[in-house]
Amino acid sequence: MKAITRIEQSLAMALASAEDASCPPKLASAVRHAVFPGGARIRPQLCLAVAQACGQDDPALSDAAAVAIELLHCASLVHDDLPCFDDAPTRRGRASVHWAFGQPLAVLAGDALIVLAFQTLAAAAGQSPARLPGLLKIIAGGVGMPGGIVAGQAWESESRVSLMQYQRAKTGALFVAATCAGALSAGADPSQWQALGDCLGEAYQVADDIRDVMGQADLLGKPVGQDAQHARPNAIANLGLSGAIEHFESLIQAAADSIPEGPAAQAMRDLVWQESERLVPRAACNAYREAASQSPQTAPASPTVGA
Amino acid sequence: MKAITRIEQSLAMALASAEDASCPPKLASAVRHAVFPGGARIRPQLCLAVAQACGQDDPALSDAAAVAIELLHCASLVHDDLPCFDDAPTRRGRASVHWAFGQPLAVLAGDALIVLAFQTLAAAAGQSPARLPGLLKIIAGGVGMPGGIVAGQAWESESRVSLMQYQRAKTGALFVAATCAGALSAGADPSQWQALGDCLGEAYQVADDIRDVMGQADLLGKPVGQDAQHARPNAIANLGLSGAIEHFESLIQAAADSIPEGPAAQAMRDLVWQESERLVPRAACNAYREAASQSPQTAPASPTVGA
Repeated sequence: MKAITRIEQSLAMALASAEDASCPPKLASAVRHAVFPGGARIRPQLCLAVAQACGQDDPALSDAAAVAIELLHCASLVHDDLPCFDDAPTRRGRASVHWAFGQPLAVLAGDALIVLAFQTLAAAAGQSPARLPGLLKIIAGGVGMPGGIVAGQAWESESRVSLMQYQRAKTGALFVAATCAGALSAGADPSQWQALGDCLGEAYQVADDIRDVMGQADLLGKPVGQDAQHARPNAIANLGLSGAIEHFESLIQAAADSIPEGPAAQAMRDLVWQESERLVPRAACNAYREAASQSPQTAPASPTVGA
Repeated sequence: MKAITRIEQSLAMALASAEDASCPPKLASAVRHAVFPGGARIRPQLCLAVAQACGQDDPALSDAAAVAIELLHCASLVHDDLPCFDDAPTRRGRASVHWAFGQPLAVLAGDALIVLAFQTLAAAAGQSPARLPGLLKIIAGGVGMPGGIVAGQAWESESRVSLMQYQRAKTGALFVAATCAGALSAGADPSQWQALGDCLGEAYQVADDIRDVMGQADLLGKPVGQDAQHARPNAIANLGLSGAIEHFESLIQAAADSIPEGPAAQAMRDLVWQESERLVPRAACNAYREAASQSPQTAPASPTVGA
């Protein structure tokens, strides 16, 4: 079965396990709206790819780890879209949860998704219970205090923040959780897979910054120009677009280089390059570089992705 | 050590474990504001009392269960106070979290507290790892979908709701989690302690409704008259004040009767009666009854608690 199919099925099962006749129907609908249809599901795919590279002796636990990470990611999107943060009317190309269901249900849907993530993990620990405490620690660490995605979002409320600390918490932490949880769910040493999550997480955040100024809302799945509008720390403000593209490419290379040798190493490297191309198409970068070299003073601020 | 001292110390340790130099300082402060100083800590006290009645062979795990439940309760208060719900400026007699720190940090503090609850539990499972999946299931069940406190709050967004279903989810679920988790943390059968949590949870919610109309903000720790103002389902609207007081007393009796026989049964019953008196002082009920019997048509709608 393809990884994406496994992920969608496991997500559907997790949601179904939390719904019954006693559940408030609008809450159940808001939670579904937050999870389906999904985006690229990159975090759970990464989790399963690492689990597979590590031998994957307990597929149900690996699935649960992947699902937990995606549910926590969905929860963060729902809360980050709220009027007190981004006030985003759209997400993944359609209405954000608070836009469709109102703020109270958006707050509660996010809360319910966080709880469901841990419920899902606990329910799947039957075969390998000794791995549960470590998995909880890894996954909760990617979300909570001091350095998870909640802390990352909270840095936006501080007057002083380093770009690296902000990005590591806001995005990197859950990527690290994805690779490390994938390894531990298969009984492998998570520390060997931390660098992959770290590099990919930062690459993903830099790509998000690049696309935010490149101005393609359809690729981003949400409104563009948000970083500047909300005065958020971002790679473009620090490095310029050209520097950000270079930084992105070096992070992808470091991610590929970090993959431990083994029978599945080449497949993992292919996945990294494939994801890189999806995030920031090489053609767009080359077009930008060409324009910049011809006229350094008037390099386009917003080249078109895919041009 | 007194239970309340154990609880405060364990809460302080849990918060300290989540703070380090990499944590955004305002988020850490907002989380502390949400947890300290606390209210009566009735849920963790209940959890520890049941653990003690069951022999409490792993005090660290019982402490963690109690802490997890209190952190989840604090999270729900922070989110319920948000402008999109109660818009409460005060909580426990001082500024609510969003009033003191702004909405973004209030949303994030609630999220961080939910995550920290599960982190705390996972970190304490070293001695009795086999109890962890069950504890997670019990505690998450008291919070999430379909019937936990998040679902309880979500019923306020529905046009049709039964009072019993609403109260069971909004308050009862976390009381049930407290008694059942207390039992399981000590290796005992949680099902024997479900009725105690059920009855106390409903009693607590009815007491809250009674105090909301009795009008003593200092006892309630938050603004009064909120149920009517927000048109929330409540016991007074269904039963009248006199009927609600009678219902409260029958629930306390049922709670006391549900306690399994054993060496600690009498101490548990004393705790129930003591909590009953704290929630709705008997003198206030008697004063209300006397006034009502002298002049049934003009029974005071809001007798003074403690009169």
